[in-house]
Amino acid sequence: MLTMQDALARLTTYWTDQGCLVVQPMNTEVGAGTLNPATLLRVLGPEPWRVVYPEPSVRPDDSRYGENPNRLQTHTQLQVILKPDPGNPQELYLGSLAAIGIDVTAHDVRFVEDNWAAPAVGAWGLGWEVWLDGLEITQFTYFQQVGGLNLDPVSVEITYGIERIIMALQEKTHFKEIEYAPGVSYGEVFGQSEYEMSRYYLDDADIEANRRLLELYAGEAQRMVDAGLPVPAHSYVLKCSQAFNVLDSRGAVSTSERAAEFARMRRLAGEVAKLWVDRRTELGLPLGTVAPPDAARPAAAVQTADGARTLVFEIGTEELPPAELRSAREQVKRLLSEGLAGTRLEHGEVRVFGTPRRIIAVVAAVAAREDDHVRTVKGPKAQAAYGADGAPTKALEGFVRGQGVTIAEVTVEEVNTVPTVVVKKHEPGRAAPTVLAAVLAQVVTGLRAAKNMRWNDPKLAFSRPVRWLTALWGDDVVPVAVSTLAAGRRTRLLRTAVPPHIDVDSAETFLETLGVNGIVADHEDRRELIVIGAQDLVYPDGKIDVKGEAALIDQITDLVEQPLPLLGTFDESYLSLPDAVLTTVMRKHQRYLPVRDADGALLPMFVTVANGPVDVELVRGGNEAVLRARYEDAAFFYRADLATPIAEMKAHLNRLTFTDRLGSMADRADRISSLALSIAERVGFGSPVLKKAAELLKFDLGSQLVTEMTSLAGVMARDYALHAGEDRPVAQAVYEAELPRNTGDVLPASVPGALLSLADRLDLVVGLAATVGLPTGSSDPFAVRRAVLGLLAVHRATPALADFSLVEGLRMAAAAQPVPVSDEVLTAAGEFLAKRLEQVLTEDQNPIDRVRAVLPHFARPAQTDVLLGQLATAVTDPGFLAVAAAVQRSRRIVPAGTPAGYDPALLKEPAELALHEAVVAVPAFTDVSSFVAATQGLVGPVGTFFDEVFVMADDPALRAARLGLLATVRDLGDGLLDWDHLRL
Amino acid sequence: MLTMQDALARLTTYWTDQGCLVVQPMNTEVGAGTLNPATLLRVLGPEPWRVVYPEPSVRPDDSRYGENPNRLQTHTQLQVILKPDPGNPQELYLGSLAAIGIDVTAHDVRFVEDNWAAPAVGAWGLGWEVWLDGLEITQFTYFQQVGGLNLDPVSVEITYGIERIIMALQEKTHFKEIEYAPGVSYGEVFGQSEYEMSRYYLDDADIEANRRLLELYAGEAQRMVDAGLPVPAHSYVLKCSQAFNVLDSRGAVSTSERAAEFARMRRLAGEVAKLWVDRRTELGLPLGTVAPPDAARPAAAVQTADGARTLVFEIGTEELPPAELRSAREQVKRLLSEGLAGTRLEHGEVRVFGTPRRIIAVVAAVAAREDDHVRTVKGPKAQAAYGADGAPTKALEGFVRGQGVTIAEVTVEEVNTVPTVVVKKHEPGRAAPTVLAAVLAQVVTGLRAAKNMRWNDPKLAFSRPVRWLTALWGDDVVPVAVSTLAAGRRTRLLRTAVPPHIDVDSAETFLETLGVNGIVADHEDRRELIVIGAQDLVYPDGKIDVKGEAALIDQITDLVEQPLPLLGTFDESYLSLPDAVLTTVMRKHQRYLPVRDADGALLPMFVTVANGPVDVELVRGGNEAVLRARYEDAAFFYRADLATPIAEMKAHLNRLTFTDRLGSMADRADRISSLALSIAERVGFGSPVLKKAAELLKFDLGSQLVTEMTSLAGVMARDYALHAGEDRPVAQAVYEAELPRNTGDVLPASVPGALLSLADRLDLVVGLAATVGLPTGSSDPFAVRRAVLGLLAVHRATPALADFSLVEGLRMAAAAQPVPVSDEVLTAAGEFLAKRLEQVLTEDQNPIDRVRAVLPHFARPAQTDVLLGQLATAVTDPGFLAVAAAVQRSRRIVPAGTPAGYDPALLKEPAELALHEAVVAVPAFTDVSSFVAATQGLVGPVGTFFDEVFVMADDPALRAARLGLLATVRDLGDGLLDWDHLRL
Repeated sequence: MLTMQDALARLTTYWTDQGCLVVQPMNTEVGAGTLNPATLLRVLGPEPWRVVYPEPSVRPDDSRYGENPNRLQTHTQLQVILKPDPGNPQELYLGSLAAIGIDVTAHDVRFVEDNWAAPAVGAWGLGWEVWLDGLEITQFTYFQQVGGLNLDPVSVEITYGIERIIMALQEKTHFKEIEYAPGVSYGEVFGQSEYEMSRYYLDDADIEANRRLLELYAGEAQRMVDAGLPVPAHSYVLKCSQAFNVLDSRGAVSTSERAAEFARMRRLAGEVAKLWVDRRTELGLPLGTVAPPDAARPAAAVQTADGARTLVFEIGTEELPPAELRSAREQVKRLLSEGLAGTRLEHGEVRVFGTPRRIIAVVAAVAAREDDHVRTVKGPKAQAAYGADGAPTKALEGFVRGQGVTIAEVTVEEVNTVPTVVVKKHEPGRAAPTVLAAVLAQVVTGLRAAKNMRWNDPKLAFSRPVRWLTALWGDDVVPVAVSTLAAGRRTRLLRTAVPPHIDVDSAETFLETLGVNGIVADHEDRRELIVIGAQDLVYPDGKIDVKGEAALIDQITDLVEQPLPLLGTFDESYLSLPDAVLTTVMRKHQRYLPVRDADGALLPMFVTVANGPVDVELVRGGNEAVLRARYEDAAFFYRADLATPIAEMKAHLNRLTFTDRLGSMADRADRISSLALSIAERVGFGSPVLKKAAELLKFDLGSQLVTEMTSLAGVMARDYALHAGEDRPVAQAVYEAELPRNTGDVLPASVPGALLSLADRLDLVVGLAATVGLPTGSSDPFAVRRAVLGLLAVHRATPALADFSLVEGLRMAAAAQPVPVSDEVLTAAGEFLAKRLEQVLTEDQNPIDRVRAVLPHFARPAQTDVLLGQLATAVTDPGFLAVAAAVQRSRRIVPAGTPAGYDPALLKEPAELALHEAVVAVPAFTDVSSFVAATQGLVGPVGTFFDEVFVMADDPALRAARLGLLATVRDLGDGLLDWDHLRL
Repeated sequence: MLTMQDALARLTTYWTDQGCLVVQPMNTEVGAGTLNPATLLRVLGPEPWRVVYPEPSVRPDDSRYGENPNRLQTHTQLQVILKPDPGNPQELYLGSLAAIGIDVTAHDVRFVEDNWAAPAVGAWGLGWEVWLDGLEITQFTYFQQVGGLNLDPVSVEITYGIERIIMALQEKTHFKEIEYAPGVSYGEVFGQSEYEMSRYYLDDADIEANRRLLELYAGEAQRMVDAGLPVPAHSYVLKCSQAFNVLDSRGAVSTSERAAEFARMRRLAGEVAKLWVDRRTELGLPLGTVAPPDAARPAAAVQTADGARTLVFEIGTEELPPAELRSAREQVKRLLSEGLAGTRLEHGEVRVFGTPRRIIAVVAAVAAREDDHVRTVKGPKAQAAYGADGAPTKALEGFVRGQGVTIAEVTVEEVNTVPTVVVKKHEPGRAAPTVLAAVLAQVVTGLRAAKNMRWNDPKLAFSRPVRWLTALWGDDVVPVAVSTLAAGRRTRLLRTAVPPHIDVDSAETFLETLGVNGIVADHEDRRELIVIGAQDLVYPDGKIDVKGEAALIDQITDLVEQPLPLLGTFDESYLSLPDAVLTTVMRKHQRYLPVRDADGALLPMFVTVANGPVDVELVRGGNEAVLRARYEDAAFFYRADLATPIAEMKAHLNRLTFTDRLGSMADRADRISSLALSIAERVGFGSPVLKKAAELLKFDLGSQLVTEMTSLAGVMARDYALHAGEDRPVAQAVYEAELPRNTGDVLPASVPGALLSLADRLDLVVGLAATVGLPTGSSDPFAVRRAVLGLLAVHRATPALADFSLVEGLRMAAAAQPVPVSDEVLTAAGEFLAKRLEQVLTEDQNPIDRVRAVLPHFARPAQTDVLLGQLATAVTDPGFLAVAAAVQRSRRIVPAGTPAGYDPALLKEPAELALHEAVVAVPAFTDVSSFVAATQGLVGPVGTFFDEVFVMADDPALRAARLGLLATVRDLGDGLLDWDHLRL
């Protein structure tokens, strides 16, 4: 059996054989190998660097007294840095797995999107978690920035989680059982330390002492920065980090402190990084400078066909995130179509396929050449080209010389009716490969992702590295060359294929060649394989909720090239965990499809989808072990939470800060509860359920499970409340208070739930508006937009709230904030609500003019729905249209500021008298429907009035009376609709 | 070329092959691998443990900005712990050297005594520095105590200094040049860090911040101890240590702080150790318990000779310290002689030889058996044995039964004149092997050293482990068995011999067998080989000062088994360093013999003595490199010091604390200077030289070179003072102020030097007597005894001081102390001086009675010399003897308290009148000589008086007068001598 220490030694040897040097772990506590200066400083600047080292990584927050089978306060990372990116780091990495006896052809090894960021050190990168049969064993990252500095060259970071890998290889279910050295278990060597350090981090560390340590460390770090010494400064930044982590695990860090501390560390790390680069430069870059890679030479242009042929262009990448793959397919289609449109090459349909490792464009029937073409070049006007004697002027002579033609070759044509000298140039169409090479190059350089990275290619930037190009027009290679990449006829297969690449004969056989080698290029084909395969696997006992899991299935589809659905099972005992816990783990963490019985109850099984041919039993077993470990984790928290009184969890909210100026989560929960009760009073709703639910509100934020899986907030509250013996309506209301969690989520069904939900969101919006401000642009860190959308949805869905004004709600919420909320802020918040409501209503397919017409009622969104419904009917009513037109016309004619009111005695014309009488007779109305009824009698008189009466009479008194009458018409329905917006 | 990272990997692999597990370096700064819990905690308790790990070891004090070729603030240790001692750790260690390509047969690998102690963690052990061609490459220690706890089993600690080993293997002269990894130098990887961390430790660390860190760490350590958590507690003790080291390297630690901090750390470490043992016990000793080794079974007793044969007994050890080897030889001789005396075995001379690895006893002509023997067993008295009828009584019957004889076999003999029944028992002598086995066993168990250790033998304790026994009587093995060791005929040769052991035929051929195999058993033989060999090597240009270097040669002689003197050279440029610097390095650090020319000037060469056959060129080169490195170090400091103004060095004394209550070294220097000037005034000596020298006094304690090599204090002061342009007499006086540095050292030749030296020692004695107390027993941490001996020697050697009273000196010194000095303390200090003077004078071969007679003059030791000289003459003078006898007789006769004085009128007898007249006529005298002359006239009268006069007359008045006359005689010479002690 490979012991843990042997594994470390073998990996170290493997990487030293790859030219890495070995350094020692950092001699101060670090949370990850990344923080060791051998990574964090060395990735800066232009010097090359290859290193491998182990790093005992201390995460106080992960302390579990050694009881949790999978979580340790100190775990062992093996860290590898390759600077620059060697071009094949994934392949090198897979080689390292083989070095410790992992058969990568039998296991399901996957690169699963992971966007790494360490804000505290101003660092980020893109890459993957590497999964071994569903188990995350490695972080693989292309570093983009450290200390806020862009990295050039980019480094590849490979971080192995050694305990996890060894547990999997040794088939252990608890880290303590790992065979660390021959005959010596991990628990025997590290168990006591794990327990004692957990005690320190969770229970016994002195908070005040660690606060002081943090300040002293920060002080020394700053002093060293000021002294221009990045190495000791960095060491103290790391000590800051550890002290902070200790405080955090002791629950002593408020949100504001966290933000402030992160800001300080980020600033210090940034200064350290700059200093390091400066120092290295001063030292003359002792390790030299990385040379930029050579530009690729395109293949020779060869054209063997005369007729139209298929074009295939494959952009080979490292594993793309599913969302980026979708976007890339669209981009390639657009860029290629536009590119082709810019040529004179005839072609057929453009189709684009994609897998995580390739985007393939297939264009049917691309002509062998562009059509030939006559180009007209304009010269001087005829008048200026020939003298009175018809002899060529200097101007014409200059022109023909410039064009390389003779005077005999020019003709005169009318250009914009002016006779002008022109030359007709016959240009032959270019050959397809030449034309395509230019177009395809533009496609590659034009690709962009939501988040782009760089690798060892000086000219490309994309979601993940582009590693190869395959371009064929018929049998011929299209001589595309982009930066370091030259296209050929070679494509890559699954990494486990032997050999892992193949030369393709022609564009026409390209997809077939891939298919023969197992790669399913088309998303839809893969999806179908997954859906059918999964359903077959679980038939007849279970079923997959294909519709409900559509998003997940789509994601899985774009995680594999050759889908192989596998059925796994888990111990039935875990079914005692809440459904949401089980499925959250399956979906979010593992991307497994849950299996349910005919009644929709979860079955103790799951479907995972492997990539390519694997040893099914091995991979199944591995995935089952991972799920078991995750469920064990969850069960551990769940049991701990059930053993914790709700009051204790709730008390924990005092230690969670909402924001700097808005107090703790406990403060916020209190504000929400009071607000909900006040609103209830306002709307005349009283219930003991609300009162009790308000007391419990958000208590599960203090539970361990929700701390781990924040998306379960509310769900767990309901579960724990029921377990604690609370009434079901109360538990339900506490759950509903968190609804909706996102757009399209279910809404509170009970009034108490709705009241709490509404109050929650009102508090959020007002508090944040008054402190950090309302969101602008795309930045919305506190998800205020989502809160507002929820607020509107809840109001619209809750009849009991129909008459409650959200503006009033904002005002009530404002009064409870620990900070002053100005009228300006309240106004802005109202406008923000109105704007969101306008958006929602528009997205609901309501015409924008009607939406805007009802928007004055935004404070009662339920009301806008009613009005819009009535408006939809009213606009088919000629009477309404006539009255509305009159109102709008009046609004245009009557000068601003003219009061509604007139002396009826001054009116003379019958039409105006009739209108007067009709207006006076208009009864009260409350909505559009009653308005239509109430203004029935106006329809005739307004028509006649406008037909017959000249408002702008010479007699000022008469004119005033008429305008007054029209002002009265104008003001009809004021407050009901914003008439100006209504388009009729 | 073996890179540093390869060397680490190979050593790690070697030790894991020996069953060691691998752990990571400590994740907080440590000064040595020993402090890692994998050593410091794991060596405690009964669990087995084998581990290997690298440890970047941080020594802030060794910071040199990366400029010094051999010294780094962070160097790499490779640490190995073998628990229990496997019995052959040295051999395993040598195997590890082979694993990194060191040919131990070609190199001179030596185990050089090193008594390791880390008082701050209550730890100590015995072992060696391992030298490779004179270069210390490893610390090898048998741990005896940690945290104040005795270790059982004992662990072997092997600590490699990796940079040093690699520099030697790669033949680099600066650590930065080490090839760390292929194509990457150590300097490129670590150079910047070395510079920057040096900056932090030497210049930039904030003292106040580090003080606070120290306190916070200590607080957390204590809290964790109180919480019963040894692991986090230990981590904080380590942090304390680092913070302390930072403060120290910033020059911010006073002596008192140092002592207090060490005490605190020691206490904490002790508590941690106890807790750890408790926790492990509570956990049920997860790693099991080390089984005690089996007791050895003695060889079968075989005796093949009838006549007397030689006995050889070899006790094979690991390398003994030279002093212990001398002691062991003496012990074996005594124990064996006494043991044999307790037997009836005839034998010849007992001789004992020894090398570092063996003590060999050779006893000539040991008889084959003890003589036969008749033993008489006493029974009842004859009277009680036989009845009146002559029949045996019950008593007799019981006796014969008990003795297993018949009544016919008993006889009656007179025992103490009482007729008694006896039995004569014939007892045959025992065979030599049997007798010897018991005696020799006692020799082994009886061996003790000044400092004893334990190893894997449960019953032995000695200076270093005993690893084998060889015992032969003639051709036969003596069946000695002691604990785990059984003697045989096999002895071990040099470790590099093939095979490294040999079976010896007989005792008579034992020494020859060793000799043939190169081992020179006799110290004198080895010494001669060294002296002659060394002289030959340097002839004709140089010579070895054999007499002056006698102690060093003796030491070298006991460091080797097969001496091989080698001549090495060094660059002439180093001769610009002071002679004392060069020779101190050679003698103290390297045990090289200096070579001088005919005029006594140093030549750029040295003689080192290798052990056994080696590759001479290789070993020479290695030793030369070591000396070069050491001289480079010294030159580095020397240059730095010469560039530093004397005033600056002197100012540094403010940062060195003498003791807690006695202020800084600057305070002490000031006190000494003032005192010296006061004494000078008192003795009427005034000179500008003294004044200037007093100003400079001790300034070199602030120099780098003296900080490194404290034994050069004074020597460097003279050198630096001369370089700074001071007058030679001034420089000389500053030098002489430090004389004598030890017993037998040169004494100040100038009066200013003597005054400063005297004042220095007076200050020391009084200050310490008043604070920590005068030394008792063997403990004398401040070397007060040495100071007093120096004080006396200086006084005796300086005529200008002859009349100066040391008691007065103590009083003057007392007045200047920063603490009150009571009369009791001064009295005790005076008595301490007197006691030491008595000892010195006695060691000078003066008869103790005369010494005691003159001791009342201890305050003027010079005076005691005069008096003793005169006494030596006087005691040959019959007149003096007569007078002295009279004085002593008077002192005996005259009752205590009788005043000297009488009424001469009461005297009647001629003899008493004659005495009266003679007494009255005694003139004044000042010393013994003048006393002899002055009392010339008394000689006759006192003789007559005692012959003729009966003092105790019946008449009280007459008696009183006679006693008064004798009291006058009694008091003759009072204050000159203590007559009672004088034996005549």
